[in-house]
Amino acid sequence: MNQNASQPETAPAPEAVIIVGVGLLGGSIGLGLRAAGYAGRRIGIARTQATLDTARQRGCVDETATDLADVLRRMDERAAPLVVLATPLGRFADLLATLAADSHGNLVVTDVGSTKARVCQDARRLLPRPGWFVGSHPMAGSEKQGPAHAAADLFRGRPCILTPADDAQPRAMEVVTWLWRTLGMRLLTMEPAEHDRQVAAISHLPHAAAVALVQLAVETGALEVASTGFRDTTRIAAGDVQVWADIFECNREAVADALGRYGELLDHLRAVVAHGSREDLVSLLGDVRTARSDWARQAGLQTEGDGATE
Amino acid sequence: MNQNASQPETAPAPEAVIIVGVGLLGGSIGLGLRAAGYAGRRIGIARTQATLDTARQRGCVDETATDLADVLRRMDERAAPLVVLATPLGRFADLLATLAADSHGNLVVTDVGSTKARVCQDARRLLPRPGWFVGSHPMAGSEKQGPAHAAADLFRGRPCILTPADDAQPRAMEVVTWLWRTLGMRLLTMEPAEHDRQVAAISHLPHAAAVALVQLAVETGALEVASTGFRDTTRIAAGDVQVWADIFECNREAVADALGRYGELLDHLRAVVAHGSREDLVSLLGDVRTARSDWARQAGLQTEGDGATE
Repeated sequence: MNQNASQPETAPAPEAVIIVGVGLLGGSIGLGLRAAGYAGRRIGIARTQATLDTARQRGCVDETATDLADVLRRMDERAAPLVVLATPLGRFADLLATLAADSHGNLVVTDVGSTKARVCQDARRLLPRPGWFVGSHPMAGSEKQGPAHAAADLFRGRPCILTPADDAQPRAMEVVTWLWRTLGMRLLTMEPAEHDRQVAAISHLPHAAAVALVQLAVETGALEVASTGFRDTTRIAAGDVQVWADIFECNREAVADALGRYGELLDHLRAVVAHGSREDLVSLLGDVRTARSDWARQAGLQTEGDGATE
Repeated sequence: MNQNASQPETAPAPEAVIIVGVGLLGGSIGLGLRAAGYAGRRIGIARTQATLDTARQRGCVDETATDLADVLRRMDERAAPLVVLATPLGRFADLLATLAADSHGNLVVTDVGSTKARVCQDARRLLPRPGWFVGSHPMAGSEKQGPAHAAADLFRGRPCILTPADDAQPRAMEVVTWLWRTLGMRLLTMEPAEHDRQVAAISHLPHAAAVALVQLAVETGALEVASTGFRDTTRIAAGDVQVWADIFECNREAVADALGRYGELLDHLRAVVAHGSREDLVSLLGDVRTARSDWARQAGLQTEGDGATE
């Protein structure tokens, strides 16, 4: 009588998962694997011992190390570990070069980066067997950073975008798919450039928009009267500067394109505000409100607070 | 040995406070007055009986009515009530006309509108004694609407901007100041046009920016991958269409100016993203992050979640 709504995972899990960067995302991958009953080795790599200590104390990983190359050297030749790059984007090229220099022949590699064209190009350029790399972007996060805030269910129910190359190896796809499904994610597949265009629209452009809102408030001298609404709208502009510089650098073209189109939409809105009729304004605002409400409902992301004025 | 940190209010309170519109703001004014020990009559006006019933059940007001003119007619000639316009902006002109038509000579009038030039002009045009009107904008709100969510401490510690005309009557200033101080607000005074310029920057422009972000996400076909970050950034775009149409209509010029300058700032950011050096990008993002953090700290509005990435 009991029927499972979801199919059990039949793909064999890798012998080990090497998580490079055990911050919020890397740490949550480790916790999620443990919660799902993963029996293989969970190895955490980070540059600072304090991060590794926290990750181990929280149960994110079983083993820790500061040197990826050293971990690979000490692995059994026959092991086929999954390596997950979970550092900031700016370190991916160096890490791929480290992986390429290793003689180990059975690595499956993925990443959690929020842009995909650059890392996929770097993997193709640097790795001797690029078909064993499958780019991933798990669309999950939290307001809190670091392994202390890692959570086993961080990824559950959220979308994860895979950007496999045409020559991606079936076993690599199988392992990477196993990882995110085990963590409860909903998988989508798209071209790296299309991924970057879409996340430019829903993530990178909103950050740029918030940055310019802060600039305008500062130069208007209006921060004295700003309150919780302004704080919430510009929250992302307080994000880590190096992380966001990485993201903008890795996705220059798509972000610039999105900013260009955004400028056109704002020009139109400005014309409606300045010269349009009440009907034009209500129609524009109403269409947007409906589109956003429909999306939030379908995505299961409605909150009671939607639409607060101040 | 006991010293009060704040000065007691010495100005005599009005005999009655007539709150026109007992939604979140109007209801919270009533609750805040009761919590502060106000002993006068609290009279709530609304168009629907259900709203009035909720407001009375929650203790927001002591008396209720649907007709402002009728309430004024039934007041003692010698009473000097404070009338607070707490409806959407679009109803202010009609309400001021109702007040003007009344023979009652001792009304002090204020409002809670989020734009000030229009209502101050309307008061001057419509009221027989415009010096008894003092515009207010209490900068407080909540994610929830209606008297059911009214809260006695909604205004506590938040800024309230007063926009008195040059000929504002001292007694009118005294009563309006009494109201907001009693509710715990920090008072600022500025010209109506300057107020509208500043709130365009920190409130109306952010709403317009969110509207265009939704438009761009829709036309990019990127909503399928949008998640909590996009939801939070665009939350205000789900706001009540008529309320926001009122705001944009009442503040056309300042909003259009802010949108124009915003476009220039975005063009500059686009150039830095597309062609700038890493140093340019880090410098720009760092300046903004610092400005926002300094503001949030000084305003007591820091939250742990500031700067989340996804």
